[in-house]
Formats: sequence, structure tokens, C-alpha cells
Amino acid sequence: MTLTLERSPPLVRDRDSDLELARSLFDDLRRATSDGKGISRVAYSDRETAALDLIASKARELGLHAGRDAASNLVITLEGSDPALPFIACGSHLDSVPQGGNFDGAAGVVAGLAVLAGFLNEDLRPRRTVKVYGLRGEESARFGRAYIGSRSLLGQLPPGELALPAGDTGRSLGDCMRDVGVDVDRVARGQAIIDAKSVAAWLELHIEQGPVLEARNLPIGIVQGIRGNVRHRTIACIGQAGHSGAVPRWLRHDAVFAAAELISRLDEHWCRFLEQGRDLVVTSGIFGTEAGEQAIARIPGLVSFSIDFRSHSRETLESFYGLFQGECDRIADERGVQFRRDTRCDTPGATLDQVWIERLKAAARERGLEDEEIPSGGGHDAAVFANAGIPSAMVFVRNANGSHNPSEAMDLNDFVHGVAVMRTAISKVIQ
Amino acid sequence: MTLTLERSPPLVRDRDSDLELARSLFDDLRRATSDGKGISRVAYSDRETAALDLIASKARELGLHAGRDAASNLVITLEGSDPALPFIACGSHLDSVPQGGNFDGAAGVVAGLAVLAGFLNEDLRPRRTVKVYGLRGEESARFGRAYIGSRSLLGQLPPGELALPAGDTGRSLGDCMRDVGVDVDRVARGQAIIDAKSVAAWLELHIEQGPVLEARNLPIGIVQGIRGNVRHRTIACIGQAGHSGAVPRWLRHDAVFAAAELISRLDEHWCRFLEQGRDLVVTSGIFGTEAGEQAIARIPGLVSFSIDFRSHSRETLESFYGLFQGECDRIADERGVQFRRDTRCDTPGATLDQVWIERLKAAARERGLEDEEIPSGGGHDAAVFANAGIPSAMVFVRNANGSHNPSEAMDLNDFVHGVAVMRTAISKVIQ
Repeated sequence: MTLTLERSPPLVRDRDSDLELARSLFDDLRRATSDGKGISRVAYSDRETAALDLIASKARELGLHAGRDAASNLVITLEGSDPALPFIACGSHLDSVPQGGNFDGAAGVVAGLAVLAGFLNEDLRPRRTVKVYGLRGEESARFGRAYIGSRSLLGQLPPGELALPAGDTGRSLGDCMRDVGVDVDRVARGQAIIDAKSVAAWLELHIEQGPVLEARNLPIGIVQGIRGNVRHRTIACIGQAGHSGAVPRWLRHDAVFAAAELISRLDEHWCRFLEQGRDLVVTSGIFGTEAGEQAIARIPGLVSFSIDFRSHSRETLESFYGLFQGECDRIADERGVQFRRDTRCDTPGATLDQVWIERLKAAARERGLEDEEIPSGGGHDAAVFANAGIPSAMVFVRNANGSHNPSEAMDLNDFVHGVAVMRTAISKVIQ
Repeated sequence: MTLTLERSPPLVRDRDSDLELARSLFDDLRRATSDGKGISRVAYSDRETAALDLIASKARELGLHAGRDAASNLVITLEGSDPALPFIACGSHLDSVPQGGNFDGAAGVVAGLAVLAGFLNEDLRPRRTVKVYGLRGEESARFGRAYIGSRSLLGQLPPGELALPAGDTGRSLGDCMRDVGVDVDRVARGQAIIDAKSVAAWLELHIEQGPVLEARNLPIGIVQGIRGNVRHRTIACIGQAGHSGAVPRWLRHDAVFAAAELISRLDEHWCRFLEQGRDLVVTSGIFGTEAGEQAIARIPGLVSFSIDFRSHSRETLESFYGLFQGECDRIADERGVQFRRDTRCDTPGATLDQVWIERLKAAARERGLEDEEIPSGGGHDAAVFANAGIPSAMVFVRNANGSHNPSEAMDLNDFVHGVAVMRTAISKVIQ
């Protein structure tokens, strides 16, 4: 890296001003939205608004135009000389979970602003307009639904969701949106605020929510796709209780042994999928015998568990789900147990744009970084843009401690690598 | 069966009087000790005493001597003509768990009395004395310790146990024993009430607590041994929590996948043991993620579970325990988790007397019954006698619904088969 920097004085200059901008903005955001334990700027709250205002005011200081759209998202614009061209959008969300961290979401908005600031520094006057979005309401923590800001922007919020009560105050989403200046009637009509065709690309920088970049010792990664998931909240494995000493194996219908066999078999199938290069993660986050009826000397007659399968390939999810059903049926048959599944719940993932992925990888290589591709396990606003037909891509920045907690740890030196990669990639298509 | 009976008029006579005695005694016991929902004659309680009194009074009606020993157990005696010969002891316990069934324990005492009644019917005057014991305090439900009556009889009750409080009233075991006439000082001194050398055998009939005889359609089985067990109340499998979508398999330390693999591997080893003809049952009755930290979208960082291994072979238990430790170590190593085990808890089983097992099997065959051997999963007073060096054996009677519940279901026709088998076997050694 040092070598690259020494050969490229403008990059050093950019790096220093990116660092300075980032440090001051993250500090300001932390001061303005700390809750004592972590950061709280929940969807459509005053503290979320404070974060938007703070970024807007910095943008104006830099000489950029900053305003709100009809969904009260922050929009910062660097006007191109040919406004008829579809524009480049970048950014992320400014809300957080309660007692969350300072970087999940905000990093992408600060990165977008830093990209524009770099263009201003270099006196680059683009032909194509570039806009930075500070979206609201990405986290599902307050209203039980995610991507409220980006879906409103694209006219995709089902009006029924406006009645959802806030988990903290009970006030409806519609009222909370109105409180912060959203044109709720327009949102309710499903009228898009921007025409997807007018957007050339959506580019989003985000902290990695997993440990892969940390484990591989890479400052950034280029996201290869956003995983969708298939879930069951509760599967009941129903066997038959009995005396742990008095029932031989051939007469047992042990729910723990049956459910454990299912998990072990899923693990084997998962390994085979990975050997075939397929993207997949498998989790059973809630798993156990029932408090009311469990005992050391009792063969368990009931185990309840959840499953969560994720992949950025729908085909992989379907084929894994088929194996899962097959294993349930086989184990039920062999062990004389039943698997009762609640309603299957699907969340679509998103395919990111291969052209943009390659642009970002090339920009990383230009900077002397590895162009590692990495899947996104969590959902992001980018999935909403991608599924609306807008070519979308993401840059992940290394983050040691996971997201949605006060110890999110992003090194600003990694962050400025991410900013530089985005700036380089964007600069190639706007001049 | 009908054929055998037709050829043997004395058996028909015995059968009818056994049935009559059993029906009247079980009815009386149920009436005297019902709690509305089930049967309650808990250890060293008035209702336990009522059960002893009821059996004693029936014994005296039949012309037998009935009294109490220094531990206030019921002792019914058919004096032999050569009182210097070691005597045959049979019986079981008369206490029950709270809201238990009428047969667990009592069936063995009624069977002993029926054996003696049959000898009286046949005018058999034995050389060797036969005693029927109605033991107290076999169930651990009230004081947390089992076999109090039989251990007191053999001078094996540690004096410390006398301070244990009753779960219902809080009164100490010593005081409760004194209330029902136990010579507590003698018990506390560990002075045996009978010399083990004076006992030629302990024979106990008991309902089967598992479903094997029911499943095999056999009225009775001859017990091949009493399983001991090795337990851990709580093993913590400690992994690392994380985002279910964002952590790839190679960076996971998933406690559910690790513990499920352990259970599945134990199941495989268990199957191999059974193929080798080794006696073993394996249970994990309590198993699960933690209520406070589990979530569908969270890789579980902690699973707690119990294990209970039972076999009537100590060597089998040790060798299985070794495999269990090995699997814990291997899985911990491969998956980057830890297994933290609490103190291992051992309960010894008992080896039953092969000569008596063969005598009982021969008696079963004589009666036209299959001489099926069956392991005992739960513990019994017979284990205390056997471990004191007294040749011991047991007959199990088919029972549809498990024990320790009001729906214990023993058919009296099966019961009289058990009585007859015991009577035949005993008759061969007392004349």
C-alpha cells in the first residue's frame, strides 16, 4: 500500500481529506445520537432526523445541494452537465437499531458524501449527476418491517404497513412519517418518488456484518450478491416421552435424537453444496426441549426449533429446502416421529450488477487491494434498488465485532479504501 | 396357555385364588391411599403405614405372622421347619410417588403374600423360612434419596441422610421415620437389622416401567440385570454467537450444530454397541439454546444439555463414556467450541443372580410361558440386596402405560402368571 500511495500524491491528498471528513462526521453523529450505551437513531425518530440534518449541513458547507425528497430521505446532489442522463445514486441509511453502533448505515452515507467531496477537490465537473441518499427506516427494529425509506422512494410500500405501530411508542408508521415531513398520501398511493429508469446505478458502502474480511485480513470486499432466506419460525419434532432407563432404542421415539439427526444431515448436505461452490448458510438459532416437560430421566417427546437458510441463489435455496423436506420425511419414518412445520417464510435476496461488480473490483486492484468477492448475509437497501431493476453494487468494509451493537469496529483507514474504490469506479462513468 | 391350565387343575385353583387375593388387595389399597387423582403413599407417611397395615391384616387373616422390623418395614413370615437355614425373602416396596399408580411397588408385596397363600393352600410346610417384605421409602420423590427402607434393613443408610427434609412438609427423614415407629438410633448407627448371610435370596416382582413386554406381547419377563447410570446434569456447549446470514460455515462456532453432531455420533456408537449385544440406553432429556439470547437470525453461541447413559454392565458404561469424551474432544477441536461438563454422577446398577434367573426362566417355561430376559432400566430395592451380596432376581409384569402415573396398567391375568412363576421357583428350594 505504501508504495502505491507514494506513487500517487493525489490519492494521499484524497486519503487525508477523506479521513478528516469521516472522523469529523462520525464524531458528530456519535455525539448527536448517543443514548449513553450505544447509538440510537431509530426509524422516523427525531434522532434519525438529527443525523440527516447533520450530514446535510456538512454537504452544504462543502458547496453541495442538500434537500429532502417526498419520503423525507436526505438527498445530496452534485449536478451533472447533462441532466438528461440517468444519474448515479449512492448512499445508505441513517437510522440504526436501538443501542446500535455508529457505522451500520451511516458509513455508506458518509462515504457517498466523501466521494462527492473528492470530486469537488479534484474540480471534476461530471456530465452525469451523482446523488447521495441518506435513507430513513432501513432497520426493522421499530416497525417490524425493513427498507421503509427505499421502498417509499420507489413507490413500493404497501399502504397497510402505514398502520404498523412503533414498538416503542405505539404510534403508527404513517403518523411517525408525517411527523418528520413525509408526504404520506403520496407514499400511500404507491407513487414512486424517483423513476427507476432515471437511475443509472445504486452503489452502497456498508460495514460487513460478519467476520470474513477480518478473518481474511482484507480492508474491503466487493459484494457478490445479497442473500435471500427461507425460514420456519417453529418446527415441532414430536416423538414420545418415556422413562430414560426403561425404554430400549427400538421402542424409542426420541425427539432430541431425531432433531439432532436432522441438523447433522443438513450439515452434511451444506458441506456438499459448499464443495460445489454454491452460496449457502444454515442456522437453527432456537432449538430445545420444553421447559414444562423436560427431565434428565425422561426421553424427550418434543423439541421445537427454527431454521434459517440463506443464499443469494434462489435455486440453491429451493434445492436445499427440498433436501430438508426429504430428510424430515425420512427421519420421521425411521424414528416414528413427526415434524410439524409452521408456514414457510421467504425473503427474496438480490442479484447485484456484474458490470458494476467488475468496475469496483478493477478500482480495488488499481489501488493495490485484493478484489475479493464476498456475499452479503443480511439484507440492505441495495436489494430494493436491485429488485427494482436498477443496476446495484456494494462495497463492504471490514468490521471486527458484527453490527447492531455498540462495539461495531470499523477502522477509518479501511473506510477510506472503500471510499476511494467507489470514487474511482464512479469517476469512470460520469465524465 | 389354556392348554397348560387344562392339564393342570391345581394351577387353575391357584390361579383363581391368586386372582381373588390380588383383586381384593389392590382394590383395598386403592381405596385407602387414593388422593383423588392417583395413588399417594409417600415414604414414611400415614398413607404408607395404612398400606402396610392393610397387607398385614390380610396376612394375619390367612394365618401368617405379620410384624414390623426395627426400620418399620412390614415382615410377613412363613416359618420353615429348619429355622437355621438361610431364608428366602421376597416382596417389594409399599410407598409410591405422589399421584402415582397402584402397582409400582405394591404388586411385589401382594405377589409375595400370594406366593405364601398358595403354599398354605397346598399345605406345603417348607423346611426353609420364607419372608415377605413390604418395604418403606423406596421412591426418592419425598426425600431425594431412594431405597431408604432396604438400606436401613441392611444397615447401609448414611446417618447424614436422616437430616434430609421432606419435600412436602420439610420435616426431617429421621423425624418422619420415628413418627412411624422406626428405631432411628439403630438405623443411625448403621446396624444391620438382618444379616445378609442369613438371607438365601431376594426375589422381587415389579411392573415393567418400560414398554418392552407390551411391545413383544409377553405377560412377564425375567430381569437380566438392573442398569446403573452415568449422568451429567448440565453440559454447556460454548460456541460463538453471530449473524445467521453473515458468517460463512468456515468461520462459525455453532453450538447447536456441534451438540447435534455429538448426539448423532453417540447414536451411531450406541447402535454399534447394540449390534455387539451390549446393554445400553442413551438419553439427553434436557437440551436447548438459552431463552435469554436465542433468536432465529442468530447463530447459537450456547447450548446446554443433560446426558444419561444406562447399562447393567459397568464396563459398557465406561467404554461408552470414553467414546463420549472422545467425541466431545474431537468436535470441540473441529468446530472451535468447548464442552464444559459438570460433575459426573454415577449410580451403580446391580448384577442379578444367574442361578435364580435360570430357576425363574425354568418356572416360566414349565407354565408354558416364554422365558424372555429383559433389562431393568429403573433402580429397585433388588439392587440394594444384590449389592449386599444376597443372590437376587426379579420378575417383571407387563404394564402398558409406564410407572409413576395414575394410568399404570397391569392386567391381573399377567400378574398371576408372575406370582405362579415365583411360587414354582421358590417351591423348589424350600422343601
